Amino acid sequence: MKPTLPLSALFAMAAATAPASDAPANDTRPVNFGMVLFTGFQALDVFGPLDIFNILSFSQRINLHIIAPTLEPVHTYPPWNLGVGSRWSESVNPTHTLADPPKDLDVLFVPGGAGTRDANIAEVTQIIDYVRDVYPSLQHILSICTGAGILARAGVLDGRNATTNKRAWAQTTALGPATNWIAKARWVVDGNVYTSSGVSAGIDAALAYVSDIWGEDEAVRLAIGAEYNRVLDPADDPFAAHWGAQDVPPVREACKKH
Amino acid sequence: MKPTLPLSALFAMAAATAPASDAPANDTRPVNFGMVLFTGFQALDVFGPLDIFNILSFSQRINLHIIAPTLEPVHTYPPWNLGVGSRWSESVNPTHTLADPPKDLDVLFVPGGAGTRDANIAEVTQIIDYVRDVYPSLQHILSICTGAGILARAGVLDGRNATTNKRAWAQTTALGPATNWIAKARWVVDGNVYTSSGVSAGIDAALAYVSDIWGEDEAVRLAIGAEYNRVLDPADDPFAAHWGAQDVPPVREACKKH
Repeated sequence: MKPTLPLSALFAMAAATAPASDAPANDTRPVNFGMVLFTGFQALDVFGPLDIFNILSFSQRINLHIIAPTLEPVHTYPPWNLGVGSRWSESVNPTHTLADPPKDLDVLFVPGGAGTRDANIAEVTQIIDYVRDVYPSLQHILSICTGAGILARAGVLDGRNATTNKRAWAQTTALGPATNWIAKARWVVDGNVYTSSGVSAGIDAALAYVSDIWGEDEAVRLAIGAEYNRVLDPADDPFAAHWGAQDVPPVREACKKH
Repeated sequence: MKPTLPLSALFAMAAATAPASDAPANDTRPVNFGMVLFTGFQALDVFGPLDIFNILSFSQRINLHIIAPTLEPVHTYPPWNLGVGSRWSESVNPTHTLADPPKDLDVLFVPGGAGTRDANIAEVTQIIDYVRDVYPSLQHILSICTGAGILARAGVLDGRNATTNKRAWAQTTALGPATNWIAKARWVVDGNVYTSSGVSAGIDAALAYVSDIWGEDEAVRLAIGAEYNRVLDPADDPFAAHWGAQDVPPVREACKKH
């Protein structure tokens, strides 16, 4: 296959020739997934979970949309001067803009990274607004690392249990005063909201999500396929103690609002 | 910062304002890194190691070049019909072509994935030729997962110890008849060649490499920053037994050629 064949053409071919999914007609499992990107996203926050689903997409009919402020490539470089003079960044291509997002999204992933901070606030504000708008129509939402701070600012975590990156614990938990922040957690599930701890923890949260939706056998198969030493216990989190992260209960006044 | 600011402009700004690196003048540690990409690369093979170096790039002056057959975006979709009708792929943007690669590369990463197989042979042959050409001038080369099959076909693994993905063990080891393939290995170092087992193992190999070059304290710092449950013992590999992978010593006749 020529490397320059457009993706749309490949998928059109696949759709035309692929057998129908063997899912039952009343299958309500999610099909359409989105990942939001912003300048300075943490690459492994994005590609840890996505690569689990890359493998799943070979056997389950699922679609991915990548959503960003514009259709321009989105870079991993942080939105501040690197200081030491490195020229090190990867860029990923969106399929949709925040202003014209996919219409039928079932699940949204929200990564973290240096780009969630104040220096990138114009972009992050757009992401927060999108998350606030789309969340009511989603089956599930999953944040990775400091992506929980975006969910918190969108109001998604009000009155919920959640976790986030342990190194950035103080500044991220401060963004969600109505949230019950659980420190010693690799990931937390509350209703239809999954939040994970820092970076690599997104892989474990993704596998827990696969287990919940497609079954534990499928999660085991994907983890072994990726040769990933999976964390099975959501409370197995040595990084909380390393960074001295403590539980942060919701602030009473903030909770009263909701 | 506007998301549409070209990367080159950002780096030009950074270079103009950044303080000089504090590395000593006789520092011979690698600066210029490359990652080769081809259609159907495994995303976590690429972004596991790269995200470790993304974090390192904040404190060490290092540069990344992404090298592919053309400058068009490179997609993760496999070079065959997905069957179930999924539309799931990410795309990454190269900075250099194989025909006009960076001139001063110190280290090259070679990922694996479905795209290393026969269905993608035209692209992979170009990658193999590039690896064969550039290897003699590199300080180090690191393969992830079935990327070892590319190194083997380029002759880099002749007479060396190496490992690769345990699920794809039989077909990948067959590509390197002059290689001593070690089954129970998360990663293997032989001279200036690092090979890792499947997908996630690339993160451990990258951290082992950081430890060898920048010291163990730096590797620990990066792993904790990524909240990654690092594998410290290169022989700690439960996936070899799971897939029944056995050591494959070099074939005598093949070795005689070299």
